[in-house]
Amino acid sequence: MRILILGGDGYLGWPTAMHLTAAGHDVAVVDNYLRRRICTEENVEPLFIVPDLHERAKIWKADSGYGIQVFIGDLMDWEFVERVFKEFDPEAILHYAEQPAAPYSMLNRQAAMLTLENNLKVTANVIFAVREFCPKAQIVKIGTMGEYGTPNIDIEEGWLEVEHKGRQQKFLYPRQAGSLYHTTKIMDTDLLWFYVRMWNLKVTDLMQGPVYGLTTYENESKENLYPFFNYDELFGTVINRFVVQAVVGYPLTVYGKGGQTRGYLNIKDTLQCVRLSLENPAPEGELRIFNQFVETFTVNELAEKVQKVGNQLGLKVTIKKIENPRLEAEEHYYNPAHTGLMDMGLEPHLLTDEVLAQMLETVIQYRDNINEEAIFRGVKWD
Amino acid sequence: MRILILGGDGYLGWPTAMHLTAAGHDVAVVDNYLRRRICTEENVEPLFIVPDLHERAKIWKADSGYGIQVFIGDLMDWEFVERVFKEFDPEAILHYAEQPAAPYSMLNRQAAMLTLENNLKVTANVIFAVREFCPKAQIVKIGTMGEYGTPNIDIEEGWLEVEHKGRQQKFLYPRQAGSLYHTTKIMDTDLLWFYVRMWNLKVTDLMQGPVYGLTTYENESKENLYPFFNYDELFGTVINRFVVQAVVGYPLTVYGKGGQTRGYLNIKDTLQCVRLSLENPAPEGELRIFNQFVETFTVNELAEKVQKVGNQLGLKVTIKKIENPRLEAEEHYYNPAHTGLMDMGLEPHLLTDEVLAQMLETVIQYRDNINEEAIFRGVKWD
Repeated sequence: MRILILGGDGYLGWPTAMHLTAAGHDVAVVDNYLRRRICTEENVEPLFIVPDLHERAKIWKADSGYGIQVFIGDLMDWEFVERVFKEFDPEAILHYAEQPAAPYSMLNRQAAMLTLENNLKVTANVIFAVREFCPKAQIVKIGTMGEYGTPNIDIEEGWLEVEHKGRQQKFLYPRQAGSLYHTTKIMDTDLLWFYVRMWNLKVTDLMQGPVYGLTTYENESKENLYPFFNYDELFGTVINRFVVQAVVGYPLTVYGKGGQTRGYLNIKDTLQCVRLSLENPAPEGELRIFNQFVETFTVNELAEKVQKVGNQLGLKVTIKKIENPRLEAEEHYYNPAHTGLMDMGLEPHLLTDEVLAQMLETVIQYRDNINEEAIFRGVKWD
Repeated sequence: MRILILGGDGYLGWPTAMHLTAAGHDVAVVDNYLRRRICTEENVEPLFIVPDLHERAKIWKADSGYGIQVFIGDLMDWEFVERVFKEFDPEAILHYAEQPAAPYSMLNRQAAMLTLENNLKVTANVIFAVREFCPKAQIVKIGTMGEYGTPNIDIEEGWLEVEHKGRQQKFLYPRQAGSLYHTTKIMDTDLLWFYVRMWNLKVTDLMQGPVYGLTTYENESKENLYPFFNYDELFGTVINRFVVQAVVGYPLTVYGKGGQTRGYLNIKDTLQCVRLSLENPAPEGELRIFNQFVETFTVNELAEKVQKVGNQLGLKVTIKKIENPRLEAEEHYYNPAHTGLMDMGLEPHLLTDEVLAQMLETVIQYRDNINEEAIFRGVKWD
C-alpha cells in the first residue's frame, strides 16, 4: 500500500515510517519541522540529537534496504499539498501533522493560535486533497482520548446511543477536552465527520492515550533511528518525563492529588494500531473510531511504578506533589471502552517493571544531555 | 452599556446597531466588508444598494441623534483587534463577524477554507481579547440551530442530560451539522465552552434559526437604513428568497421533498433576543445557550404561504420542486425547545399573512433590481 505519513518527523511519525516499510508498504513522509522549531524556540530540546528526515531515511535505507520518500514543506500551503499528493499518489494518508502538545497550546496567545490554525488547516487540506486527488484513499487520523475529557459515565468508542424522552439517536460521543490542543482534535473530529457524510470518505479516527517508550521493533539499539524524545513539561508525555526525572534525580512532578486517570500505551502498540487500521480500512462513508490505549493508570500509580523500578536500579527517586498548573479533575470516574483494536489483532505491551527498567537504562546513557531547567516551568491553564 | 458589534455591516449587524443605540446603549461597529466583497465576487448583489458603515452611521445620526462609532478592519489581525478593544473598552461584545452562508461554504475549497479560517480565528481572537483587555466583559455570540442538525430526539437548549449504564452526565447537546459553515459554528461552540471553563468567561451562545424580513423598529420606510438583503441561493435565507422569487415570477425553489423543518424568526425578534441577552448577561463561568427562533415550518409550508399571499397581491406564484443540491434529510423528526428567550421577555412576531404581504410589497418596489441569474445556480453539497 502507498502510505503518506504526514508529520513524519515526530515522536510517532518516524517510528511508524520505519515500521510500515518493514511491513512491506511504500512510504513517503512529510514534515515542515514545526516541532523542531518550536522546541528550539522554547529551549526544550529532545534527549538526544535526531538526524533530519533526509538523513534518517538514508540511515534506514542502509540499515534495512527500505527506502522512504521525503517531502519537506508546510501542509497548510495548498501548492505544496498538491505537489505531494500528485507525486506520491497515496492509497492511504496517515495524519500526524499537528501541533501535539497540550501545555504548549496553553502557553500564550501565539502558541494557541498556531495550534488552532495549523491543526485545523492541515486537517482541512488533507480532506480536500483526498477529495480532489485520490477520492478512494483512506485517511487514518490520530486523535486523542483527551477529546472525551473525564465524564461521569463510561466512555464508549467514539459513539453514544442516547435514549431521551422515549426516542433514540446515535451521536458522536459528546466531547469536552481539557486543553486547547485537545479541543482542536475535537474540531478535527467534527470536520472529518462532516465530510465523511458529505463525500463518503473512509476515515479512521484513533483516540489515542499518552504514549511512552522510545525503542520499537525497528530501532532497538540503533540510536540514530530513535524518535524525537521530549522529556520537558511542554512536549514530554508523563511516563517519559517521569523516567527522565528519575534518572536525573529530579522529584517526580505529580500535579495536585495525582488521581488523574488516563489510558496509556507503549509506542510499539501505537505502531501496531496504526498498521492494523491501515491494513483493515474503514468502509466508504464511515468515520470509524477506536480508543487507542491498553491499560489505565492514575498519575500516582505511574509515579510509584517509576520510583520502585528506579530505586531497584540504584537511583534515588522521590515524588513531589506540586500545585496543579492545569485545570482538571484530580479524582474522577474513568471507564473507557477499548475493544476495537484488540478485536483487529492488537497484541498489547504492558507497562511492566522490565519495560520501565529498559527505558530507565536507555535514558541513563543520556544523563549528561538532560537539561534540568527544561523539566518544569509551570505553564498555567488559567 | 458599551457594546462592540463585530460584523456590524451584515444583515443583522447594522439593524442591531441601530436598535441598541435606540435602547440607550453606546455602540461601536466593526467590519471588514468581507460579505460585500464575496457577494461582488460571486455576482450576488443585494436587492438594493446599501451605504457603507461610515455613511450609514451618518444617516442614522441625522435621523435619530444617536452616534455609532465605526472601525473598519479584519478581526483576524491581532493588531487591529487590540486597537479596537483598547479604544472602545467594551463591556459587551456581540459577535456576528463570521462568513454566514452555508451554500457559500460548500462552493469550493477556497470558500470552505475562508469560512473555516475566518470564523475560527475571529472567535479565538475575541476570546483572547476579552481575556487580555476586558476580562469582565460578556460575549454574546450568534450560533445556529443548524449546529444540532436533525436528530431523532428532541433538541434541548444547548445541553443534554445523558443517562448511560446507570450513571449520569450533562453534556453539550451533541451536534452534527449539515454544512461546513454550520460545522464552523460547532467549532466556535467547542472553543467557547473550553475557554469558559478555563477562564470563567461570561458567554451567551444563541442557536439562531433562519431569519426573515427587512424592516425593523428603527428603519421602517427608511430605505437607506435597510439591511444588506440577499435573495440569492448563496446568501439569501429561504423566506427572503421565496419572497423575491414570488415578486419576479420565478418558481419558488423547493429542494427535494420540501419536508425539511426549521425554526424561523423575524429580524425584529433577532434584535429583541440579542438585546435581552446583553441586558441579562450570563454569569461568570457559564456558557449560556438559547435556541433562538419562534415557530417551525417545513419548506413546503413556507412556499405555500408565500404563494397564497403573493397570489392575493396579484402575483402569479408557482412552486417548483427541484433536485436537492444539498445532502440533508427531506423528512425528519424536529422538536426543538425554545423557552429560554421567551422566559427573558421575548415577544414574538409570527409569520402572518400580513407580515408576508408587507415583505412582498416592499420587495415589489425593487423588482427592477432583481437579477434572476443570481437566484439559483445549484451549488452541490457532494
